[in-house]
Amino acid sequence: SKPLIQKFSSSSRTYDAFSPLDTFPRRHNGSSDSDVKRMFDVVGVKDMEDLASKTVPANILSKRPLALEDGLTEHELLIRLKKVASKNKIYKSYIGMGYADTIVPPVILRNILESPGWYTQYTPYQPEISQGRLESLLNFQTMVTNLTGMNVANASLLDEGTAAAEAMLIAYSAGKQKQHTFFVDEKCHPQTIACLQTRAECFKIKVIVGNALKHDFDQYGKDLSGILVQYPATDGTINDYTELANKIHSLGGKIICATDLLALTLLIPPGEWGADVAIGNSQRFGVPLGYGGPHAAFFACKEPLVRRIPGRLVGVSRDPSGIKAYRLSLQTREQHIRREKATSNICTAQALLANMAAMYGVYHGPEGLKAIAKRIHDFTNTLAGDIKRHGYTIKTDHFFDTLNVHIEGGSEAIYKKALNAGINLRKVDDFTIGITLDETVTKDDLVNLIRVFAKDPTYIPSLVDVEKSNIPEQFIRTSSFMQHQVFNSYHSETEMLRYIYHLQSKDLSLAHSMISLGSCTMKLNATTEMIPVTWPEFANIHPFAPIDQAEGYKILIQELEHDLAEITGFDGISLQPNSGAQGEYAGLRVIGAYHKSRGDEKRDICLIPDSAHGTNPASAAVSGMSVLNVKCNNGDLDMKDLEEKASKYKDRLAAFMVTYPSTFGVFENGVLEACEIIHNYGGQVYMDGANMNAQIGLCKPADIGADVCHLNLHKTFCIPHGGGGPGVGPIGVKSHLMPFLPGHPVIKTGGDKGIGPVSAAPFGSPNILPISWAYIKMMGNEGLKSATHYALLNANYMARRLSGHYKILYTNQNGMCAHEFIVDIRPFATSADIRAIDVAKRLQDYGFHSPTMSWPVSNTLMIEPTESESKAELDRFCDAMIAIREEIREIELGKQPKGDNILTNAPHTIQTLVKPTWDKAYTREQAAFPIKYLRERKFWPTVGRLDDTYGDRNLICTCPPMEDYLD
Amino acid sequence: SKPLIQKFSSSSRTYDAFSPLDTFPRRHNGSSDSDVKRMFDVVGVKDMEDLASKTVPANILSKRPLALEDGLTEHELLIRLKKVASKNKIYKSYIGMGYADTIVPPVILRNILESPGWYTQYTPYQPEISQGRLESLLNFQTMVTNLTGMNVANASLLDEGTAAAEAMLIAYSAGKQKQHTFFVDEKCHPQTIACLQTRAECFKIKVIVGNALKHDFDQYGKDLSGILVQYPATDGTINDYTELANKIHSLGGKIICATDLLALTLLIPPGEWGADVAIGNSQRFGVPLGYGGPHAAFFACKEPLVRRIPGRLVGVSRDPSGIKAYRLSLQTREQHIRREKATSNICTAQALLANMAAMYGVYHGPEGLKAIAKRIHDFTNTLAGDIKRHGYTIKTDHFFDTLNVHIEGGSEAIYKKALNAGINLRKVDDFTIGITLDETVTKDDLVNLIRVFAKDPTYIPSLVDVEKSNIPEQFIRTSSFMQHQVFNSYHSETEMLRYIYHLQSKDLSLAHSMISLGSCTMKLNATTEMIPVTWPEFANIHPFAPIDQAEGYKILIQELEHDLAEITGFDGISLQPNSGAQGEYAGLRVIGAYHKSRGDEKRDICLIPDSAHGTNPASAAVSGMSVLNVKCNNGDLDMKDLEEKASKYKDRLAAFMVTYPSTFGVFENGVLEACEIIHNYGGQVYMDGANMNAQIGLCKPADIGADVCHLNLHKTFCIPHGGGGPGVGPIGVKSHLMPFLPGHPVIKTGGDKGIGPVSAAPFGSPNILPISWAYIKMMGNEGLKSATHYALLNANYMARRLSGHYKILYTNQNGMCAHEFIVDIRPFATSADIRAIDVAKRLQDYGFHSPTMSWPVSNTLMIEPTESESKAELDRFCDAMIAIREEIREIELGKQPKGDNILTNAPHTIQTLVKPTWDKAYTREQAAFPIKYLRERKFWPTVGRLDDTYGDRNLICTCPPMEDYLD
Ligand SMILES: Cc1ncc(COP(=O)(O)O)c(C=O)c1O
Ligand SMILES: Cc1ncc(COP(=O)(O)O)c(C=O)c1O
Ligand SMILES: O=C([O-])O
Repeated sequence: SKPLIQKFSSSSRTYDAFSPLDTFPRRHNGSSDSDVKRMFDVVGVKDMEDLASKTVPANILSKRPLALEDGLTEHELLIRLKKVASKNKIYKSYIGMGYADTIVPPVILRNILESPGWYTQYTPYQPEISQGRLESLLNFQTMVTNLTGMNVANASLLDEGTAAAEAMLIAYSAGKQKQHTFFVDEKCHPQTIACLQTRAECFKIKVIVGNALKHDFDQYGKDLSGILVQYPATDGTINDYTELANKIHSLGGKIICATDLLALTLLIPPGEWGADVAIGNSQRFGVPLGYGGPHAAFFACKEPLVRRIPGRLVGVSRDPSGIKAYRLSLQTREQHIRREKATSNICTAQALLANMAAMYGVYHGPEGLKAIAKRIHDFTNTLAGDIKRHGYTIKTDHFFDTLNVHIEGGSEAIYKKALNAGINLRKVDDFTIGITLDETVTKDDLVNLIRVFAKDPTYIPSLVDVEKSNIPEQFIRTSSFMQHQVFNSYHSETEMLRYIYHLQSKDLSLAHSMISLGSCTMKLNATTEMIPVTWPEFANIHPFAPIDQAEGYKILIQELEHDLAEITGFDGISLQPNSGAQGEYAGLRVIGAYHKSRGDEKRDICLIPDSAHGTNPASAAVSGMSVLNVKCNNGDLDMKDLEEKASKYKDRLAAFMVTYPSTFGVFENGVLEACEIIHNYGGQVYMDGANMNAQIGLCKPADIGADVCHLNLHKTFCIPHGGGGPGVGPIGVKSHLMPFLPGHPVIKTGGDKGIGPVSAAPFGSPNILPISWAYIKMMGNEGLKSATHYALLNANYMARRLSGHYKILYTNQNGMCAHEFIVDIRPFATSADIRAIDVAKRLQDYGFHSPTMSWPVSNTLMIEPTESESKAELDRFCDAMIAIREEIREIELGKQPKGDNILTNAPHTIQTLVKPTWDKAYTREQAAFPIKYLRERKFWPTVGRLDDTYGDRNLICTCPPMEDYLD
Repeated sequence: SKPLIQKFSSSSRTYDAFSPLDTFPRRHNGSSDSDVKRMFDVVGVKDMEDLASKTVPANILSKRPLALEDGLTEHELLIRLKKVASKNKIYKSYIGMGYADTIVPPVILRNILESPGWYTQYTPYQPEISQGRLESLLNFQTMVTNLTGMNVANASLLDEGTAAAEAMLIAYSAGKQKQHTFFVDEKCHPQTIACLQTRAECFKIKVIVGNALKHDFDQYGKDLSGILVQYPATDGTINDYTELANKIHSLGGKIICATDLLALTLLIPPGEWGADVAIGNSQRFGVPLGYGGPHAAFFACKEPLVRRIPGRLVGVSRDPSGIKAYRLSLQTREQHIRREKATSNICTAQALLANMAAMYGVYHGPEGLKAIAKRIHDFTNTLAGDIKRHGYTIKTDHFFDTLNVHIEGGSEAIYKKALNAGINLRKVDDFTIGITLDETVTKDDLVNLIRVFAKDPTYIPSLVDVEKSNIPEQFIRTSSFMQHQVFNSYHSETEMLRYIYHLQSKDLSLAHSMISLGSCTMKLNATTEMIPVTWPEFANIHPFAPIDQAEGYKILIQELEHDLAEITGFDGISLQPNSGAQGEYAGLRVIGAYHKSRGDEKRDICLIPDSAHGTNPASAAVSGMSVLNVKCNNGDLDMKDLEEKASKYKDRLAAFMVTYPSTFGVFENGVLEACEIIHNYGGQVYMDGANMNAQIGLCKPADIGADVCHLNLHKTFCIPHGGGGPGVGPIGVKSHLMPFLPGHPVIKTGGDKGIGPVSAAPFGSPNILPISWAYIKMMGNEGLKSATHYALLNANYMARRLSGHYKILYTNQNGMCAHEFIVDIRPFATSADIRAIDVAKRLQDYGFHSPTMSWPVSNTLMIEPTESESKAELDRFCDAMIAIREEIREIELGKQPKGDNILTNAPHTIQTLVKPTWDKAYTREQAAFPIKYLRERKFWPTVGRLDDTYGDRNLICTCPPMEDYLD
């Protein structure tokens, strides 16, 4: 008999009578089947296959369907993933090396890391609807600035290794002429040294590793750009670098200090003994170990280097009514920065984790942090004392939380004994064991740890009192820090919760309305995908734990690599890069290594279309390549220009970088041909995978001709944007490039001729990989393809609806765009003195985040709806855009004056709307509620439009002092 | 040497050098040590001990300190509780009996059940700042109304058993004269029958249990008030009750139908075949089993019974500007209802769980629900077919999801075989096995289940297709349901998330600001306390699972009982009651049983002070007692009146109910004496524990003289209010009452002479007990006492700050209040035509929820800050109250007109503030931002003040139809 069960056709699962119902694709894709039919009519296609064939060139439309598993239901997914997770063994870790276990305050865990109000936010480019996270990132900057004793800190970097590399490059380029020698103290973490070395190669920087306190620097003369020291060092030692700093400065070099924020609550900060830059990992401030990431690295420097800071910097500004407001200042390396200026490719960073670390600082305050540090230090002293009594030598003279212990009989036995007790130690060398303590260590843990060193198996330390600190007076910090109100107010859970909610309430996120940023793919970050991230089995494992303890992660990583390879058509994947741009960097370095391996060392030119994302040329630059632009005509690659340049530089041609579908939002017909041209001239094709959401299930980068491609898992594969990070930017490569995939000095990864690591952790940011894994497993073959279909349909539907009101730039011969499209605002400059930014700000009044502004074409808006938006939401957005077009018409018709109208004055805040007088050519109600749905559901910007130049001129990048709150 | 560690003195943990730092009391109690000192100065006390001795009468101040464990840290707590939880064994359950496993949609789990924005809300008495949850509860009502085919449904009841009892009482009292016979079909769930029987006793209702389809009802003549049938029945049978309904109606009785919402998506609803009332459990709509609760029961009825509905009813109304708005209508049984009218004591219900169930309905929509039901039904048919083929007889003719199987050889063997396979079946009797399927059952589960019945151990059912439904045509539902927009719009996760966030954004909760409701103890509901609630080990266990599978719950329950006994001084605890009022009921019934056991059957009078909470007299009434009021003078119990009444009715005196500290917010000196008086006259003392937060660690109800006391775990012990439930109202009793603690027909609980069950589940709402357990374990002896200290300090601090501006009613001889105090608004009635409600509504403009209004003294506000609020927050609230006093002065001085001023027009919405014209005697800015902090942090009411009478006259209690959205 026929089953009564109905098939949900927006789902992918092949239905038999026994199929489960909680299939995921129908929850992930936004529109109902009946709405999809209505959209087909508007777009003028019969069905999804028809849509695809009118959109994607026939010569690339995949003949081979995806060969993944069928989609799991949400319920099944969690059961399967729990089994995978349970294969990770959680040992007590004393490995250290820049990663320390931490107690994540549950109020922060639940209300930030697990809250869509925080994790679905975009980068705060629109400050008027982002004051909450801007404030929180400013707290991060203030905390870092204070603790390091520097003048300015940025709002996070990808990891400590990257931060060190960025700092090295600043030292390299800060002087009048480039200085090619850089010295690294041997007592830095090995992964930091390795990341530096990877980065140094392309700049022909000579990295010398040695003992900084004994080294003869005079030999380098003026060629020494700077040095990196670690404080406390990887072996735990606290050194006095004051004299060293003087020496290096006298030679014209910079002092970069890798450091530990928690130690700095007790120790004289680097800024006070002469360092120019301080970098490090803020992970131990309440961010889970997560097998290596994501964590927020920090970067702080002295005043003279401010305008060279990589990444994002939040500053304090004022809105038109004089209200204090935060904004991104000095976005030195953002996508809208002129490409020639870029010396860093960092764009996505670690905002979500920086927010967690900042909140940890807010919750504990300076006294709380000090108490945590002191307790760890007390424990370490006590441990050292007891170990000594058992006849071992402590090699570390002055320490904070880390000891190196000399083991006369060889370290292996102790290392093994610890393992048997469920304890991970650091085996530094054959005779040395490293131990790092953290805030999670209890008295019982200490007992167990000491017993590993006791020869008598019945020994139990008494632990009546802690032992005296051995840190000499000269190292003890006397300066205060974090005296601002924000770090001294929210120490009860109630206050903390309200502070978190208060900030969140100012920020528009995906929990409110669509964020249609072209090239950013702001799709659903499903709860089921997010749940595993905070499972202890994934969260509490050290990146350098013995690999047999990380079996669960191994399975996860292998399956994800397999699935991504199948999706892209590539042969090998590296998950190491922590962002799209790091993927670009890794991919270009792999290409470089490949050429080199064939003796093709001269190949150093990278062809990049005009329209490329700013990270492309920046990545090429930091990979030591010379960038040549390729022209675009009317949205299409200029094939003639491409061929000419490829042929002209055929001996130097290293790579061509291409985004597909193009940054103009179309599936260009010439892409196959372009790849052929490049290959013919000996170049490699790098595909920027930012637009992968338009390809999955329809075509594959490897089939199109790419040799390498990065994917933004934080776009296409559902890792949330987190307000500007985390990200994961894996690269896929064809087999000839596999040997060159990036390695790691501590845990083996990559190919046998692999380039050095591009990230500090072997697998980048494993803690968030369950998200993408889950997405792929729940969508399955059919579901993934359906998402692409919906993404294309949504974009084309919107383009059709808006085309009667705005000019839509660039469609293909069938009038179709890909998954995004560009709306032209340029005509209104003359007709109404209105620019893209005015439309963007007015959209805020309608409850929407602006689409991508002025990229890749200036004075346009690029809209990418993604598959997860419903027709209802698309229509609300279109209605808003159409209403704004009519508002522009009012200006064109002279009903509203140019320069003082409902667009140029946008966004409107409540504070301005309730002012007693009102002298605008429109009413308060028109400003606030131009469309009916807003009366029911409206998101309010909390400050008025910010003046960019005011902020950059008056650079204040830390929290206002207490007095500011007293008036 | 001295440890460097600093002691956090707001913490309780005895510090030694090795103590952990993440102690909980300093996070739970709101103020810092330095703020506490400042508050001491204002209050005029030296320290906490001094404060306590000036506040609590010396003759009750405890000489015996608490003897609990020391407080655990948050980290330690979760580790310990995880161990306890892991002792619960999660078997696949087919037990049924009103509880079915369910798939909680993760988006609902995380964003409602785990979200402080939803779980910390109070009952929506202030509709202007509660539109979100009011809308959601209206969705619940609409869904229930539609599915049951009734005209009206309420916003939830405590559980199915309670709902059945309430329905029986309505049948009993609906007629012109009381009808004392009530018939219950034997195929109702046993716990429902038992709850009814418990409740019937006091009303002298004769409950007859039999086969309704075969019973001779004529024998009862006009004495039959009604009958209860279950549809589908507990054995799975679907009966046609149409004729039965006609018969009962012809005799003047009511038909009450216990039913299953999911079955009703397929079956003709009770409303269509003649039932007058439909009740049941909505648990299987996405609410975890939780070992029995909390779940939302539903209660729906036909139009004629509307004004008798127990619990809360949400209605649709209009605000002053005509905007659609929701509010509680017909609060027939709320605390402010005249006590003589009460025929139910239900106050707290299950709002949070009703919201979850409603959201489940919103997420699945009518088609999705039907698909779920059909799949379960298909599976059940298939199961029946296969079982039959193995030679068993299916006893259930027509079924939806439940089968009774006759086992010739005896049911025990099959039952055991299933257990060995990790499967729980229902052993109905020695020859019958019951099996109920649910939406979590997979094909593999079905295979495993069928194999239990297969004699051949190698048998594997092929399961190629499902078998045909055996439900006859006449039972199949043809009417549509849930056609409203809200159930047909939010089926993608993105839309669902935004809907949840949108509703939440309209509701003020503890995540925004203090909710200082006197007698409600709105304290911190800490994240660590909440985390275990959604652990699968606690969430996924059936209440009637074999008790050896619930070892974890057993430990939890025993430890909690132990700790509560220690805190209160009692000898025995029952955790069964699901609310404070059910605790009252249980306690009074225990007292009744005690008197009866001694032959004291005449004792039926309950003395209750005027000032008592409305639930007290209502509970006495439903316990069959006669209530006599005792006077209060000037906030004190009139001892003379008490003595006189006790002596006059000494033969009939059953109990005296007293709240301590008193409802006037003072520790009355005469309490010991009052208890003695009652005992002297043979009565028992019932203490209402709503104010227990003022006692813990300072005094104990049992020591003061109480024989019974209920505790509101949802007040003092941190279970969140959830927008009006869940609650847990355990009772503590002295040893002479222990034999009478409530029992249960399925799982043994209570004393050997126990009264019948007062709740459907043996342990009430176990799933939320981890919250109170965790609170006690983390606070420990010292922490619990410190919380009381902070609660007293906060109240006295506020009272002092406000006393210069308002009259504070009732303090003791030292000028001290307890943990709450009353602000007198009465003088402003004459001076400014201002009443308590005007102050309450104006407080919304200042971002605050009103304190308790006009109870226990009319036209006053009773403020209870709790220990969790910080001095900063108390000050903000006091500043608001003082500013409002100045606004009242403006009216007194004639600067603002009476009746049209900033108070009477409050709250002010954005919509009214941006209207073009403004004709008030105050500015828009004064309305919106009367105080500076509001410009930074303000919560906006979304509708203007609601007109109570409009709503009650125009009763609309379901969602507006589609057309409403089309204009
Ligand atoms: C086209 C394109 N390429 C590369 C990137 C860089 O990715 P990420 O920000 O993760 O470094 C982006 C990011 O927006 C992009 O849009
Ligand atoms: C003094 C007092 N007694 C009893 C109750 C009844 O508790 P519940 O609402 O949990 O039934 C309340 C609740 O507000 C109360 O304040
Ligand atoms: O810079 C961007 O993230 O697009």
